[in-house]
Amino acid sequence: MSANLSAFNHDVAPVFLTETELKPYLNRLDVTACLRDLFLALAQDKAVQPAQSLTLLPDDKGDFITYQGAVAGADVFGAKLSPYLVTSDKPIITAWTTLMSSRTGKPLLCCDSGLLTLERTAGTTALAVDQLAKKESKHLAIIGSGSVAQAHLKHVLNLRQWQSISVYSPSLNEDASLQDRLMTIDKRVQISSTSSACIQDADVIMLCTSSGTPVIEMQDLTKQDVLITSISTNVANAHEIAPSALSQMDVYCDYKATTPASAGEMKLASEQANWTSAEVKGDLADLVNQDVEKPSYQKPVFFRSIGLGLEDIAMAYGIWTQLESSRV
Amino acid sequence: MSANLSAFNHDVAPVFLTETELKPYLNRLDVTACLRDLFLALAQDKAVQPAQSLTLLPDDKGDFITYQGAVAGADVFGAKLSPYLVTSDKPIITAWTTLMSSRTGKPLLCCDSGLLTLERTAGTTALAVDQLAKKESKHLAIIGSGSVAQAHLKHVLNLRQWQSISVYSPSLNEDASLQDRLMTIDKRVQISSTSSACIQDADVIMLCTSSGTPVIEMQDLTKQDVLITSISTNVANAHEIAPSALSQMDVYCDYKATTPASAGEMKLASEQANWTSAEVKGDLADLVNQDVEKPSYQKPVFFRSIGLGLEDIAMAYGIWTQLESSRV
Repeated sequence: MSANLSAFNHDVAPVFLTETELKPYLNRLDVTACLRDLFLALAQDKAVQPAQSLTLLPDDKGDFITYQGAVAGADVFGAKLSPYLVTSDKPIITAWTTLMSSRTGKPLLCCDSGLLTLERTAGTTALAVDQLAKKESKHLAIIGSGSVAQAHLKHVLNLRQWQSISVYSPSLNEDASLQDRLMTIDKRVQISSTSSACIQDADVIMLCTSSGTPVIEMQDLTKQDVLITSISTNVANAHEIAPSALSQMDVYCDYKATTPASAGEMKLASEQANWTSAEVKGDLADLVNQDVEKPSYQKPVFFRSIGLGLEDIAMAYGIWTQLESSRV
Repeated sequence: MSANLSAFNHDVAPVFLTETELKPYLNRLDVTACLRDLFLALAQDKAVQPAQSLTLLPDDKGDFITYQGAVAGADVFGAKLSPYLVTSDKPIITAWTTLMSSRTGKPLLCCDSGLLTLERTAGTTALAVDQLAKKESKHLAIIGSGSVAQAHLKHVLNLRQWQSISVYSPSLNEDASLQDRLMTIDKRVQISSTSSACIQDADVIMLCTSSGTPVIEMQDLTKQDVLITSISTNVANAHEIAPSALSQMDVYCDYKATTPASAGEMKLASEQANWTSAEVKGDLADLVNQDVEKPSYQKPVFFRSIGLGLEDIAMAYGIWTQLESSRV
C-alpha cells in the first residue's frame, strides 16, 4: 500500500486466483505493514470504508455479506462477497474478492479470499495488540484452537516478550494432534483444561472462536489491566463476551463508523440501553494515526473487530502487486 | 431464469468475459423473458433485492455503485460494481458483474456489464411499457438519441402498433448520421426540433437521457392519458422530470422497496414534502404478478426505474447459461 506501488500498470488482463494459486504470494506478503498503512490511509481520508451489507438468500438458504472499500494511494476499489450457504451437511462458507482499478474502471483480480480473510483477521488483532497491550505484557491466553486461533498466535508471537501462552477450546483436551500443531507453532504453548484456567493472570486474552455466545466469564478475570480481543462470525448477533460486560471496559474497535452497528455484543448492549457506541474510545485508524490516547488500564480493555472490506481490498491488492512484480 | 436452467453444473472454472467476448451470447439472450421471469421470482419471494449502495472515492475522484441480488431458482447471487471515475478528460464509467453460485460459493463469471446494463435498462422500460401503456397507444415519443435511446426504441418497437415515433435531443438536429442511425432502426422515426413538439399527442414518452435536470415540461403535455418512463444516471439526485410533477401523476417504479430512496425526483419530492413513497401505486413485481391494478389514466402515469442489481445478476446468469450450453 506504499506510495510507490501506485506505479503499477493497471491496463492488464484480469486474473483469477484460487487459494492454491494465491498461497505463494500470500506467504511473501507483509500483512502487518499492509494493514498499518491501510489504517493510516483511513485516518487521513485516503481510504473509504462503507458499511458491510448482509443479504439473506431466498428460501432460508443462508446469506451473503458484501465487504467494500476503496484506497486512493493504490487507485483500487472493490468488494468481497462472502456467502454462508446452508446445506443438508455443514454450511459452505467462502469469500471471493473482486479488485477493480479506479484508473481504468476494469477488474484487476478476482481471488479466493478464504486465506486472505484468515490472515487479515489475525493481522488486525495483532495490530490492535501491538497498539493497545501493555508493553510489559507477559501472559497470553487464547480461547479457540482452530485455524483462526493458530493464525492469531503466529501474528502476535513477536509483539511482546511472552513468558506463557495458554490455549483453551472445548475440543482441545482430547485432540492430541491439534495440541501438537499449536505447540509446533511455539513451544511456550500450554493447553488449559478450562476457559477460566486459561485466562487466569493473562495480560492479553484473544478470543478466536466462531461462537455466537460468550466464551469467557468476566468474573474469571483475575486482573483488571487486561486486553481482550474479539472477532466475528456469520452467526446472527455473534458475540464472544456478554453484552453487559461492555460498560465495565474501555472499548476500542477496528473502525468506529461501522463496527458498533455490526458487532453482536455492541448491538445487543445498545438495545438493552446499558452502552452506546459513543463510548468507543477509538479505532485502529485513531491508534495508528496517534489521534487517541492509549488505555490507562484502570479497567479491562476490549478490542472488537468485525473485519473491513478495506482490509480485503488491501490484501487483494497486496497479492496483485506481488503477481505483477513476478511478471516483470 | 426458467426452472430447468437450475440443472446447470456449477462446479466449473470461472470465466472472464470482455464486452467483445460477451456480445454473441447477448445477441441470443431473450432479455424480455429474462426480466419477466425475474420480476415474477421477486414477487414470489424467490429473489432478493437489497438496496444499491453508493461509495464516494477518496480525493473527489468519483464514486462507485454496488448493485447486488440473489435468485433462488438459478442458485446464483452476486454484485455489479459500476464506477464513475473523474479524469482530466471525460469521466470513465464502467460496470463489471461478479456472478457467484449459491451451491458452491464460488464465482461462475466475471463480465463486462456495460452492454448488459444498456440492454437490461431498455428491457426494463419495455416491460413497463408493455404492462402500463394503453393497448391502443399509437404515438411514441423519445427524448434522447444516444445508445440508451436506441436500445429503448428497439425494445418497444413491437409492443404496440405505433403510428408515429418522434425523437428529440438537443444535439440531434445537427447530427445527420445519428438521424440516419435512428431511422435505420425503424423507418417511422421522425426527428423533432423541440422537446415540446416531440411529446405532442404522445401516448408513451420515454425519457432516455443522462440529464440531471428535467428534460420535458409538464405543461407541454397535450393529453392526460400518457405514460412517461424515466431512467437514471450517476449524477447526484438525477431526475428527468420536475420533482413537483410526481404528485400530479400515478407513479409506478421498478422496485418499490428501493427505488424511492434512490430516484432523484422522488428523494427531492419527499424532502420538499409534496409527495411520499407511499403514493407509489406498484412496481414491476406487482405488475408481472398481477398484484396491482392497471392505471386508470385519469391522469398521466409515470414509471421510474433505477436499475436493480437483480437485473444485472439475471443478465449475467443468462450469459453464463448460454456459455455453458455452447460448451456442451
